[in-house]
Amino acid sequence: MIEPVRTVGEIAWRGGRFVAGQRTIPEETAVAFTYNGSSYAVMMATPHDLEDFAVGFSLTEGIIASPDEIERLEIVEQDIGIELRLWLAEPHATAFQERRRYLAGPTGCGLCGIETLTEAMRTPARIRDTVRFRPDEIMRALHSLNGLQEINGQTRAVHGAAFYQPGQGIIVLREDVGRHNALDKLAGALARSSCSARGGVGLVTSRLSVEMVQKAASIGLPMLVAISAPTALAVRIAEAAGITLVAVARSDGFEIFTHPARIEEDRSLHVVA
Amino acid sequence: MIEPVRTVGEIAWRGGRFVAGQRTIPEETAVAFTYNGSSYAVMMATPHDLEDFAVGFSLTEGIIASPDEIERLEIVEQDIGIELRLWLAEPHATAFQERRRYLAGPTGCGLCGIETLTEAMRTPARIRDTVRFRPDEIMRALHSLNGLQEINGQTRAVHGAAFYQPGQGIIVLREDVGRHNALDKLAGALARSSCSARGGVGLVTSRLSVEMVQKAASIGLPMLVAISAPTALAVRIAEAAGITLVAVARSDGFEIFTHPARIEEDRSLHVVA
Repeated sequence: MIEPVRTVGEIAWRGGRFVAGQRTIPEETAVAFTYNGSSYAVMMATPHDLEDFAVGFSLTEGIIASPDEIERLEIVEQDIGIELRLWLAEPHATAFQERRRYLAGPTGCGLCGIETLTEAMRTPARIRDTVRFRPDEIMRALHSLNGLQEINGQTRAVHGAAFYQPGQGIIVLREDVGRHNALDKLAGALARSSCSARGGVGLVTSRLSVEMVQKAASIGLPMLVAISAPTALAVRIAEAAGITLVAVARSDGFEIFTHPARIEEDRSLHVVA
Repeated sequence: MIEPVRTVGEIAWRGGRFVAGQRTIPEETAVAFTYNGSSYAVMMATPHDLEDFAVGFSLTEGIIASPDEIERLEIVEQDIGIELRLWLAEPHATAFQERRRYLAGPTGCGLCGIETLTEAMRTPARIRDTVRFRPDEIMRALHSLNGLQEINGQTRAVHGAAFYQPGQGIIVLREDVGRHNALDKLAGALARSSCSARGGVGLVTSRLSVEMVQKAASIGLPMLVAISAPTALAVRIAEAAGITLVAVARSDGFEIFTHPARIEEDRSLHVVA
């Protein structure tokens, strides 16, 4: 079992002099995904919540549609990293091998560039969830993030991805040195507890790249809230996928980039005012 | 030609009310790398300095050892992204196809997990550069970063990677939504201007993951300075690769995690005091 944080020695140069000290930093481990004995990808990740990572990555990559399709998962620690060995049940195992052969592609076909671009830019299914949230709900969810980020509390150097359920608050939070991995772990944790992402909000402490939006769309999240800014491509894909994209979320408010209809003013506030 | 930034409309909720506004955010584009007609990878990147990206990525991935090995580069804009079509001269083209076949691996071999971990954790050649830097030089280099980050100046949402040459200051800076891409573009810019990374310092505005250290090692950088924290694996690989790792660099100083001998106190400061 590898610890997710480690305390190392360092020499600080501050205020004009050298002082020996210590710093607690996040661990990072090479994690290899294999499906029925075939390698698929290596991710550099925080060695924590690996069952969630295995299930979530398989879901957001479109390798499985449900955790039931995984017949067996072995987590094997090697000297140089961790293997997540997944065994898919039929007919999913055969479907995976066919997709893998398609992606590997013929050698020197000349069309490969366009094919891999098409694969990377696959359009997610449009989310038609009609759930609505009040701005103060989003602000409360954001404020409660800090206290739940255990690894980040020790290191100030990992990302968090959380799921907010109306009426229940944040019910799951996962952390990782990689923001994509944190979101994959969240997707896996939700799926493993048979909790649908529909009707709730995903909150991430990072920036919003297009892959974050694609992953959110693949698990049916109607709203994604980020502390930092989105990319222009993330905004376009969120628009197409029917996701409400909220970003630049700070202590005094946030900015809505797509599908603002899911955020409604709290009329009760106006009555009070 | 795709612009690297874009201004989009947004609805801000700040101080208890909605206000329509605009925000300038970074563009992000799927960039497919093909070598002699075979696809290799798709990266999500800022569509800027793509020649540097093509050369730098090829170098840090170990596909080429020098820009001369690239016979031709075509940058092809598609609707869904950009293709970087590289054509390698022989014998490099054949070597690439052999490596590609090795990485694709046999189906269901059972050893694939360990093989891909070994590939991801390849040990870089040890850097034996004896160059030394004074703390005030590092601080000056850090302070000059801000003024050079054009895209970040407009968006506050992209990473920068710069090269500091003693006596000359920062001579190259490249930017990207992805921190690895920014470092790859820097590697490419240095190689294309026949500028050796030996004897200088790489500065990055991001955190230091192991891949950043591996890329720095592959181009021979003796020192890597980051604004944010390193991972524990990045520290171990920097130790093994002979790289001086400096991180948590702020306005009042920085912390040295490996090979501190390359940083020497400025004795002239003591004379003045």
